[in-house]
Amino acid sequence: MSSVISHITVSVDGFAAGPRQSLSAPLGEGAMDLHTWLVSTAAFRGTHGSGSSDPASDRGDDPDEAAAVAMSAGVGAYVMGRNMFSPGRGSWDLSWRGWWGEEPPFRVPVFVLTHYEREPLVMEGGTVFSFVTGGVADALALAREAAGDRSVHVAGGASTVQQFLRAGLLDELHLHISPLVLGDGERLLVDVGQPVLEPFAASGSSKATHVSYRVIR
Amino acid sequence: MSSVISHITVSVDGFAAGPRQSLSAPLGEGAMDLHTWLVSTAAFRGTHGSGSSDPASDRGDDPDEAAAVAMSAGVGAYVMGRNMFSPGRGSWDLSWRGWWGEEPPFRVPVFVLTHYEREPLVMEGGTVFSFVTGGVADALALAREAAGDRSVHVAGGASTVQQFLRAGLLDELHLHISPLVLGDGERLLVDVGQPVLEPFAASGSSKATHVSYRVIR
Repeated sequence: MSSVISHITVSVDGFAAGPRQSLSAPLGEGAMDLHTWLVSTAAFRGTHGSGSSDPASDRGDDPDEAAAVAMSAGVGAYVMGRNMFSPGRGSWDLSWRGWWGEEPPFRVPVFVLTHYEREPLVMEGGTVFSFVTGGVADALALAREAAGDRSVHVAGGASTVQQFLRAGLLDELHLHISPLVLGDGERLLVDVGQPVLEPFAASGSSKATHVSYRVIR
Repeated sequence: MSSVISHITVSVDGFAAGPRQSLSAPLGEGAMDLHTWLVSTAAFRGTHGSGSSDPASDRGDDPDEAAAVAMSAGVGAYVMGRNMFSPGRGSWDLSWRGWWGEEPPFRVPVFVLTHYEREPLVMEGGTVFSFVTGGVADALALAREAAGDRSVHVAGGASTVQQFLRAGLLDELHLHISPLVLGDGERLLVDVGQPVLEPFAASGSSKATHVSYRVIR
């Protein structure tokens, strides 16, 4: 059965997003810099299409590069919270097609947790957003089926990762710790019960520290 | 001038101590395991005198061992919060001589922050506890003078590290992240302002992840 994996970036004080998330600050105030380590990688620029990666410079020994590659390697499907897919907490805008343009970087099925039914959105490049109203277990079952023997990645945000941890459904948690101190916002590791974690890899650059945990059942 | 350094162990959710600290649970409930990584090192057992270190097995490439050595290497003086020195928050018991017995592992001057005057305590093995009522800047000045060109270590607890960060007095913060999820207790990185941190080293074992930050002025 495929592994269920989450890669998520947090501040050094444990926030996955800043306060007051909005259309103009989707990650909350002050939190865009959380992802500085990621957006500077060739792997990210390659999958997100802005700028070209340079095949002549193999940066496989760069910890940030390796972490960025691991974030999308071997993924067969994603599960994503409704709040990561769309802004606001109010109305459900059917014209909204995600934050990522017409060719999102996922390129596999993405199962979006929501309370509202919606037809699937078939995007360019292989991404299909499907909307699941039955909760994390249902979304995971669908994602597993779509992923085959590849892994299912829980893309975020914080509350979705929390639901997976609480339900004992996560196999690996990869924390990418940005050196930012946010002081306020949405904490990742609250209300998750007492999962037993075992770190199995750690690396870092001046931009981030990468720690991989196995969740012991 | 000597560097001002803090080594502190936190849970993966950011707590330096558990809830309800007391005489029988000085680190708070559920938090003794925070230090599992440390107490299993030869460096710790050597300085704390329980068991002998084995000179035949050089464990210098063990990340926990290296972190334990760094915690006490080159230290000329410590600054410590009153709450780390003694239990409770109430009366100031003059018969209390610290948690560490008659030969504490510090072996250099230790400046304890307190609101109550007290004569210095000269312990065996080089440790002298002096009690400072003038706050962190005063304690640091005294510690610097005692340390000479060696470093001053801020031993903890969380609120003392917070005061140093807030006052911009810390040069390096070394976080030893235990895989424990405590869920409650005393957080390390709250109310510290917005220090600019730059990670410069990361390593880890199955017991802990070690991340070293430079605090940029």
